[in-house]
Amino acid sequence: MILDSISLPSDLKSLSAAELSVVCSELRSEIIRITSLNGGHLGSNLGAVELIVAAHFVFDCPSDRFIFDVGHQAYSHKLLTGRRELMENLRKPGGASGFPDPSESLFDHFIAGHASTALSAAVGIAKARDLKELDFRVVSILGDGSMSGGMIYEAMNNSSGLKNFIVIINDNQMSISESVGSMRVYLSRLMRSKNYLTLRKKFRNFLNLMPGKFAKGLESIVKNSLAAIEGNNIFEELGFHYIGPVDGHNLHDLIEVFQNVRDIANYKPVIIHAITQKGKGYTVAEKDATNLHGLEKKTISPKYSDVFGRKITELADLDDQIVCITAAMKNGCGLVEFSERFPERFFDVGIAEEHAVTFAAGLAKEGLKPFVCIYSTFLQRAFDQIFHDVILQCLPVRFVIDKAGFPGPDGKTHSGLFDISLLQNFDNIRIEAPSSKNELENIIEMMATDLEYPMAVRFPKDTAPDHSIPTIQPGNSGILVIAIGDISNAIQSLIHRLGKKRRPTLWRVRTIKPFDFDTFSNLVRNHQKIVIIEEGVFGGSSNIILENLIENRMIDLLNRIEFINATKEPVPTSSREEQMNELLTQLLSLLTEFK
Amino acid sequence: MILDSISLPSDLKSLSAAELSVVCSELRSEIIRITSLNGGHLGSNLGAVELIVAAHFVFDCPSDRFIFDVGHQAYSHKLLTGRRELMENLRKPGGASGFPDPSESLFDHFIAGHASTALSAAVGIAKARDLKELDFRVVSILGDGSMSGGMIYEAMNNSSGLKNFIVIINDNQMSISESVGSMRVYLSRLMRSKNYLTLRKKFRNFLNLMPGKFAKGLESIVKNSLAAIEGNNIFEELGFHYIGPVDGHNLHDLIEVFQNVRDIANYKPVIIHAITQKGKGYTVAEKDATNLHGLEKKTISPKYSDVFGRKITELADLDDQIVCITAAMKNGCGLVEFSERFPERFFDVGIAEEHAVTFAAGLAKEGLKPFVCIYSTFLQRAFDQIFHDVILQCLPVRFVIDKAGFPGPDGKTHSGLFDISLLQNFDNIRIEAPSSKNELENIIEMMATDLEYPMAVRFPKDTAPDHSIPTIQPGNSGILVIAIGDISNAIQSLIHRLGKKRRPTLWRVRTIKPFDFDTFSNLVRNHQKIVIIEEGVFGGSSNIILENLIENRMIDLLNRIEFINATKEPVPTSSREEQMNELLTQLLSLLTEFK
Repeated sequence: MILDSISLPSDLKSLSAAELSVVCSELRSEIIRITSLNGGHLGSNLGAVELIVAAHFVFDCPSDRFIFDVGHQAYSHKLLTGRRELMENLRKPGGASGFPDPSESLFDHFIAGHASTALSAAVGIAKARDLKELDFRVVSILGDGSMSGGMIYEAMNNSSGLKNFIVIINDNQMSISESVGSMRVYLSRLMRSKNYLTLRKKFRNFLNLMPGKFAKGLESIVKNSLAAIEGNNIFEELGFHYIGPVDGHNLHDLIEVFQNVRDIANYKPVIIHAITQKGKGYTVAEKDATNLHGLEKKTISPKYSDVFGRKITELADLDDQIVCITAAMKNGCGLVEFSERFPERFFDVGIAEEHAVTFAAGLAKEGLKPFVCIYSTFLQRAFDQIFHDVILQCLPVRFVIDKAGFPGPDGKTHSGLFDISLLQNFDNIRIEAPSSKNELENIIEMMATDLEYPMAVRFPKDTAPDHSIPTIQPGNSGILVIAIGDISNAIQSLIHRLGKKRRPTLWRVRTIKPFDFDTFSNLVRNHQKIVIIEEGVFGGSSNIILENLIENRMIDLLNRIEFINATKEPVPTSSREEQMNELLTQLLSLLTEFK
Repeated sequence: MILDSISLPSDLKSLSAAELSVVCSELRSEIIRITSLNGGHLGSNLGAVELIVAAHFVFDCPSDRFIFDVGHQAYSHKLLTGRRELMENLRKPGGASGFPDPSESLFDHFIAGHASTALSAAVGIAKARDLKELDFRVVSILGDGSMSGGMIYEAMNNSSGLKNFIVIINDNQMSISESVGSMRVYLSRLMRSKNYLTLRKKFRNFLNLMPGKFAKGLESIVKNSLAAIEGNNIFEELGFHYIGPVDGHNLHDLIEVFQNVRDIANYKPVIIHAITQKGKGYTVAEKDATNLHGLEKKTISPKYSDVFGRKITELADLDDQIVCITAAMKNGCGLVEFSERFPERFFDVGIAEEHAVTFAAGLAKEGLKPFVCIYSTFLQRAFDQIFHDVILQCLPVRFVIDKAGFPGPDGKTHSGLFDISLLQNFDNIRIEAPSSKNELENIIEMMATDLEYPMAVRFPKDTAPDHSIPTIQPGNSGILVIAIGDISNAIQSLIHRLGKKRRPTLWRVRTIKPFDFDTFSNLVRNHQKIVIIEEGVFGGSSNIILENLIENRMIDLLNRIEFINATKEPVPTSSREEQMNELLTQLLSLLTEFK
């Protein structure tokens, strides 16, 4: 393997064109092998191989800053920057993160787990460079999916005049699922037609044919017209030099373009629009690009997402006021069937969480029943829109917060531990946390009624047991364990393993807000010690319970209460089970300590 | 006054052109009179008079939905929709809100205190209309300042094909201060040249002059070329029909354009680009448009914002690593002098808080000292960027959180009560709350050192006393009052009024995180009762203190602690003093109750 001889990207520079091609094939094999062992993003990474190789061949990383957006395409980059061993344990404890991470390597200059952020970071890095009078290139690598996110425009709006500022759009015509919206249509138009260059040529040829007397008059028109055409490109209107479309799998072309760009970029920011194919080089992945976006091991029981998807489709059949909104998470949120059955009531707004929430507020304002389906970690992008457009107007937007809690192998960037802490700031929202298929279905049914206030349901990226354990499972040890949502299942197993002798009472809480203070008051009376455990940071459910204690002047109870929460430090990459184990271990030691 | 005869916008429809003109003058006089009495947004509202009158003349509000962005331009709208009496007490308890508010009037269809949200709401409203097969127009009224906010693009990206969807851009070439960025340059270019229309005309004339044999060849080129020019507009590329520029003060033109648009809009979304002058019709406001954005009564003592601005300018003189970033809040954050002294180190990114934070993370990554200056209520837009780009990488971004706490007359949309609750979710950020000029200066000095972690300072929209009251002011009543930041000044006055007999100890906390638990432990030992009071919701400083109690196994202390916080319900419009009084009244009753 040539790849074995490459420990730094600079090792690429001495290779021949033929050898570089071999490196690309080898990278593909490695990516397929590694993701089949560990899961991860196959399709997008296979599509980006030539782009990454060409970029490393032409530019000088890490002196030139490579800034990935989202980072679904960074596996080749990791394999070329001394991390082949780490990649063997991709997305596992001690292995490589699935995303670029500066704490992992100097070659990862900036973190990238959430989309549409790269260009903003790159603008900051470039302005700092100029102020410090340093000399390096800032090379941003974006996916076309990120182009729906508003931050990209905010950053483009602030990129004017930046030199040695190079943006590569890896356009595989898909984000997580299909890219959507006017920008997608626009990129496709750019992709299909070379109108821009050919029109120019035609004018030039025509001028040569024209009789003199007309030629002069025409010339000025043509000139104006060319100027107009020159700007006939959103990117050029916003001050970039646009180059494209380029075949993103043609290593020769890519290298030539990048080499030319090194010079052009001396006077203007440059965008290179490269067309790639998601899953390139792997037949199964090519054919089924959406499903292979993130590979996970197959499970037999349905996930919470699937339960939601099926239930909402069933309800929507009976109620045409139900609409679903997502921000490029159709598959992840279990909405494929809904989107096919009710295309006119399904809105994938692209990676645009802020818009998704205010858009849903608009739908609710007119009397529809909007379900906004977004992962916990991405919903935090729309905190202000939830406050300003939903809460202040008390509009019945339904939030379906998927992948809430520990992020599992997606790691720290995808932490879903903040949603309750964020939502507990508002007085008029109802928050539910189911612990089974059955319970989630009941909650969705409730959300589909004529609500007069916003409501949220949060559940983990995991399988849903058919039925929940009993709400209250009496014990005999004097300890009351209050468990919020799905983590109650893991806690029940733990308790079972403890044996029957000294069993705590387990109260499984489904409704986080409003908190059932009556049940709480009754239960605490008969227990000496209370443990509250939730899959989130301290300040979420804990805060809601504390508010209840204060309001009911029962705060002295607190000297009998222990809280078990996720820490506020970044979550280490691991499985959800292992991440939950941190909490369960704490619980176990409390249960065994207490005499 | 003709205005006296208008209680509903439909009353406008029977007026002659001359009468409509008079109405505009009368509205201007009213706006000037009302804002001189109550404060408020003078310039932007004066600039929008003709736009609003023409819109109400042509469209049918409230059946047609008027969606304002930000709503700095809605005073004429309020005066024309039966709210003249409410407007007498603009921004006062019982009076009209400074922003559109559905709870105030049916004519205010959607809330609008934060920028760039209108189009997203409008898309939702329009899609709901189409699903319900209803028939009305959705008319969004945007300021050009909002065009820097990413949500606008996210919404445009999702507007494709919408009918009866009309967007009016009120382009006064300023947002709160000057609008910035490539989009501003672009709008100005559109504004200056009527290239688009004239070029078309020229081509047509030219074709008529052409000899036959050339005409045919030319025709196809011209056709292609026109198609190219047709798209020579960002808005058209994104699927809108663009009309403009239009003189936004020419009532006759505006009415004609709006009437035409009613028809065009039957097949495509339309953008009307109207050019207006901020402060139009009021000489002082015209001349000094930025300063008159928000009118406040003059104060003699400097505000916290001014103190910050002076201090950072002074420090930047000695340290060229210091840079300031704001999101269209240059004046509000006291940065005018800094921006003039250090233009190359000052970045106003426009209304783009998400970008501002990640941009600052990029600057910090390269070793600069970025101060991100944003109001509390707007910083909440960037929660995810703070988490993902700053906290996870532990980058020393400095957050200067202005207008934190109660919003005063700006009302519920501008609530600054969440910032601590949001930031306490992170383990590696330092948070400070000064209570005087002197203390803020010390904090800024600290922030200007070589920090290795992010740091935030939050202060209210108010004047800063020169010096803080003593950190600990001993009392004799057995009560300890712990007051966070500036509210300690109001509390000291309250305590003074109580007389010397039964005085609580007052501990004024400057550093919220890390919380000084040693002092806390010492103080609580000598007091029977502890009251913690902060200008924010429960879950902010309270949560940090609770975490400390839990960590130090002193949670039993809680049966001696009372928390006084802002409620989680929307803040009623009032002055900051009155809003604080809610908390002070609670404190007073605790102090007098306790025997």
